[in-house]
Amino acid sequence: MLSKEDNELLCRVGPGTPMGDLIRQYWIPALISSELPDPDGPPLRVHLLGENLIAFRDSAGRAGLLANHCAHRGASLFFGRNEEGGLRCVYHGWKYEVAGRCMDMPNEPTESTFKDRVHLMAYPCQERAGVIWAYMGPREERPSLPDLEWISLPESHLHHSKIFRECSWVQALEGDIDSSHVSFLHSSVGRPKLEEAWQREGSRFWEYEHGDRSPRLEVVTTPYGAIYGARRNAEVDTYYWRIAQFLFPFYTMIPPIGPRAGVGTRIWVPVDDENAMYWQVSANPLRPQEESDRRRWGSGAPLAGEYLPPTSDWTGRWRLAANKSNDYFIDREAQRTESFTGIGAGVNLHDQAITESMGPIYDRTREHLGSADAMIIQARRRLIDAARELRDLGTSPPGVDDPAIYRVRPASILLPRDVSWLEGAREHLVARPGVPVSSV
Amino acid sequence: MLSKEDNELLCRVGPGTPMGDLIRQYWIPALISSELPDPDGPPLRVHLLGENLIAFRDSAGRAGLLANHCAHRGASLFFGRNEEGGLRCVYHGWKYEVAGRCMDMPNEPTESTFKDRVHLMAYPCQERAGVIWAYMGPREERPSLPDLEWISLPESHLHHSKIFRECSWVQALEGDIDSSHVSFLHSSVGRPKLEEAWQREGSRFWEYEHGDRSPRLEVVTTPYGAIYGARRNAEVDTYYWRIAQFLFPFYTMIPPIGPRAGVGTRIWVPVDDENAMYWQVSANPLRPQEESDRRRWGSGAPLAGEYLPPTSDWTGRWRLAANKSNDYFIDREAQRTESFTGIGAGVNLHDQAITESMGPIYDRTREHLGSADAMIIQARRRLIDAARELRDLGTSPPGVDDPAIYRVRPASILLPRDVSWLEGAREHLVARPGVPVSSV
Amino acid sequence: MLSKEDNELLCRVGPGTPMGDLIRQYWIPALISSELPDPDGPPLRVHLLGENLIAFRDSAGRAGLLANHCAHRGASLFFGRNEEGGLRCVYHGWKYEVAGRCMDMPNEPTESTFKDRVHLMAYPCQERAGVIWAYMGPREERPSLPDLEWISLPESHLHHSKIFRECSWVQALEGDIDSSHVSFLHSSVGRPKLEEAWQREGSRFWEYEHGDRSPRLEVVTTPYGAIYGARRNAEVDTYYWRIAQFLFPFYTMIPPIGPRAGVGTRIWVPVDDENAMYWQVSANPLRPQEESDRRRWGSGAPLAGEYLPPTSDWTGRWRLAANKSNDYFIDREAQRTESFTGIGAGVNLHDQAITESMGPIYDRTREHLGSADAMIIQARRRLIDAARELRDLGTSPPGVDDPAIYRVRPASILLPRDVSWLEGAREHLVARPGVPVSSV
Repeated sequence: MLSKEDNELLCRVGPGTPMGDLIRQYWIPALISSELPDPDGPPLRVHLLGENLIAFRDSAGRAGLLANHCAHRGASLFFGRNEEGGLRCVYHGWKYEVAGRCMDMPNEPTESTFKDRVHLMAYPCQERAGVIWAYMGPREERPSLPDLEWISLPESHLHHSKIFRECSWVQALEGDIDSSHVSFLHSSVGRPKLEEAWQREGSRFWEYEHGDRSPRLEVVTTPYGAIYGARRNAEVDTYYWRIAQFLFPFYTMIPPIGPRAGVGTRIWVPVDDENAMYWQVSANPLRPQEESDRRRWGSGAPLAGEYLPPTSDWTGRWRLAANKSNDYFIDREAQRTESFTGIGAGVNLHDQAITESMGPIYDRTREHLGSADAMIIQARRRLIDAARELRDLGTSPPGVDDPAIYRVRPASILLPRDVSWLEGAREHLVARPGVPVSSV
Repeated sequence: MLSKEDNELLCRVGPGTPMGDLIRQYWIPALISSELPDPDGPPLRVHLLGENLIAFRDSAGRAGLLANHCAHRGASLFFGRNEEGGLRCVYHGWKYEVAGRCMDMPNEPTESTFKDRVHLMAYPCQERAGVIWAYMGPREERPSLPDLEWISLPESHLHHSKIFRECSWVQALEGDIDSSHVSFLHSSVGRPKLEEAWQREGSRFWEYEHGDRSPRLEVVTTPYGAIYGARRNAEVDTYYWRIAQFLFPFYTMIPPIGPRAGVGTRIWVPVDDENAMYWQVSANPLRPQEESDRRRWGSGAPLAGEYLPPTSDWTGRWRLAANKSNDYFIDREAQRTESFTGIGAGVNLHDQAITESMGPIYDRTREHLGSADAMIIQARRRLIDAARELRDLGTSPPGVDDPAIYRVRPASILLPRDVSWLEGAREHLVARPGVPVSSV
Repeated sequence: MLSKEDNELLCRVGPGTPMGDLIRQYWIPALISSELPDPDGPPLRVHLLGENLIAFRDSAGRAGLLANHCAHRGASLFFGRNEEGGLRCVYHGWKYEVAGRCMDMPNEPTESTFKDRVHLMAYPCQERAGVIWAYMGPREERPSLPDLEWISLPESHLHHSKIFRECSWVQALEGDIDSSHVSFLHSSVGRPKLEEAWQREGSRFWEYEHGDRSPRLEVVTTPYGAIYGARRNAEVDTYYWRIAQFLFPFYTMIPPIGPRAGVGTRIWVPVDDENAMYWQVSANPLRPQEESDRRRWGSGAPLAGEYLPPTSDWTGRWRLAANKSNDYFIDREAQRTESFTGIGAGVNLHDQAITESMGPIYDRTREHLGSADAMIIQARRRLIDAARELRDLGTSPPGVDDPAIYRVRPASILLPRDVSWLEGAREHLVARPGVPVSSV
């Protein structure tokens, strides 16, 4: 349970809010590089942390993220012409380069110096690991990107996918560090199709999961956020430990399943207070993505079905065909006989449905948290405390000035019953280039 | 005319409002029994008095009405599995029986006693006369149902129908105790089709109605609400009296027309401040509903045309195909030559159109009430006074502790001109099982 | 740039706002006469200055503009019957003539005098030059219509067209007194189709426009508003002057192009704070509109493509098929190779797109105005000052009591470089019946 004040502080991300300011300390994934495929291509509307921005790629291939409204009289730069070296407003021809400098102001007398005094709000961008990252914060000297393992991999080893989710970013994130729901929300009734698939991939995950549906959770704070170990009975002398990470401000590393597990992360980027973009970064530490990996994702959203046709609206892309307006195509008969939810298109859609069903921002004063929610409690506490310390003391939040702390991994391992999980898993939780993830 | 304050008090029905508290003193019709046909069937979204609730029927056939959000972290129970004896949240498997008790909490350790301390908000339900009634009020010991004549009839003698109306419940109700509109809103131009139908059924209603379109209204308060007699000239030595009832908090009994008239009522249940559910209870005091009765209702809404296909939304059922978005299919040529409104599908649709056309909550400070509005004035006064007395003095409103006062009827009768209507109609206004309604 | 306070004052037009009160001093174009074609025809919903009104034409052909809600209990008069001499509410039969007097109240006793005390809010209308004008102001004795040149022409010489625009009236109007955008927003890339068309009509407009895209602007206040001359280099010893007018409260006269230019005006009528109706009055001072003129307008909106099918909603008419929901059918390839905007259907649609793209009411505290915006600055200042003077001192705004000041014209002329434009253009700027507009 949170107080009303803490709930507001946790969820609101607009300019000037404590959590919005905290997130703006970090580089933020704004677009997949391929969303702006070509130099001088059409601009895109982007809604990020409650702000309306226009993204474009200039003639030199640099990505830019400008304020929507032209500095002159406010025409939208979405209608702009992406010309040599900058984006030109079609109303009076004012032209801006990626950093917001006004390059040309052809409707003013040629001798005018007015254009040198006009600067459009623009957020610095950099491109790395197939992601266009934006810095929406106050520092003149930008911080570094987090040293997440996949960010240093060749793009060929990566696959990015996104799903628009209609609820608060933190409500979405919480579902990802919530070990116990897996035994229910994603479970089968009757023929265990999903379980079979996981078993085919060589994981004993489901066997242990089914055998012990109320795992004991141990949560520890870390320099970069928090970590949990979820302990289940395995063999007579072992425990099955599923270990997951939360990393400031919006990254999660969920426990791996099966030998194909990679070193990606999930990213829960606030679109605004009531919507989030779920990024699934798939990263193979050893080799390029292959045809079989791609088949896994198919043409649609990973484990969530098809997308709706994209639109040019502020939030018109990456929306699922199965969504709250159609109850995610719930099939009540399937719910009786096949799966716990009756929602067919996969685990991501289950998570989507259930976190959206709480409403845009759940009123956390009405919660009843149990021992299974310890990680969620910890992650919220870390975020709230850090936002307060930034606001009140100016303290930089974790990782902004220390990108190396992101060099960690999750794990799924068997350990003898008398071994401490943090001790026993220590080496498995460190990013080790060229070494696969530890995944039972 | 009402003051702004009185208008707000009259119309607002959310939790904690004076009128909302008044209505919550009574049992409230929530669903037709057949809307939850089967034990362990799919749950339904229900919006009632501004609250979002999940209705379900458990394995034993009991109806339940639970809070939408699971007590744990707020997942919607609409997606719940209706299992043996209760509704189970699909997020972490918490399971609730109809009274809101948490029966199972499988994601917590088996030795945990947490579930005994968790209770989900649930409203008591009872089922009677084909209606699922809910009690949303504060009493531990529930009051009785009102002793309306039809509630004691066998279900075979009853027919329930509902229409969703897009305006305040009281605005809708007022149209039902408004005698003088009948001569206009429902009248014909040119060929009097509707009149002919009524005449075929043996009523002299229309003849008197046409002969005297400004009836004299006499209004008297009653223990259960208010009653009016609308007097029209009939034969040389008689008056035609149409007598209608308003009963706390939302029942009306309109004057009968023709010998087929029954002992049903109309119920104006607040969905929220700006929407109402119109219940039409048709009840034959003497015999089961017959094929010819059912034909009268047809497959669609009684005298209002077809329904839109139902949706699973909070207010997705019982909506009319003819609605404000299409101007109720008004036909201007028909308005010139056939009917006063040009709206074809029947009297209920006329009422629907005209009360919705006032807007969701009409600003009653701008009214100009005449002598024809005396009953409306009285009913409002009764409601407002009772809501204030409940709020300020804790006085239970009429009928809550005295269900017998509901044993009344409306009537349409001819009386000698020198006889007081209340005297002359006395025996006709009492519920008399086995005796038809008095209807000229 | 405006302060937040001035921006609010400039844009808000509801009853009781300073700008709303200012505009209500004038006669306001409410409908094209042909929108109410027949006596006793169906009533129309009209949304004007934020008010919901019902327009109808009575048996004598008089136009009326009544409050939406019947004075009795608020039923909408949109559903009314347009009967002999007045509009009758279908709820209880109350009937109103165009001036709002209650003519009949048939549900009250015949001896009642209640109807003599009931008066429905109604705005006086007059019909002139094919326009139904409404007076929504406070004066008992109405002011005169403005003495605009076209108002005295025969209706045969006129053509009215309207386009609904989804932004503040003043944001729309500003685009019309903004000389420098023409060289960008409406310009071509590659094959200059539009320019060719203008040239075919005999104008050297585009030649000068292209040769000098940053005109020097001179702005002067006038008794009726403001005037600008935009100076471009023409021949070696001449300047090309484009002279435009702003006239209180919402008229513009843009500089003419080519010999077919007429003496019409544009009118920017506030629908509400966030929407405007753009009136294009085309007026030939010498002869009736001909087939070739009509072809110019076609079946759709002038230079803006097709209309959406009209609806009966408050703002359901004169909406364009190309609109913000579909990005005005922008064609990015055409934007690269054919026109500056890639928006195909004509100059009016360019203006529509760009002013709507600013949002419903642009936040003018964020503007950066240049020398090219001098006319806009002046027009705003005139409007704001006049609204303040009316509010604080009761001063009647320009033209209300002096209709003759509207006898002016715009012009496009060549003048020797050493001649003052106001001197040189003096006679061209006066309305001269029977003389064509001066247009190079």
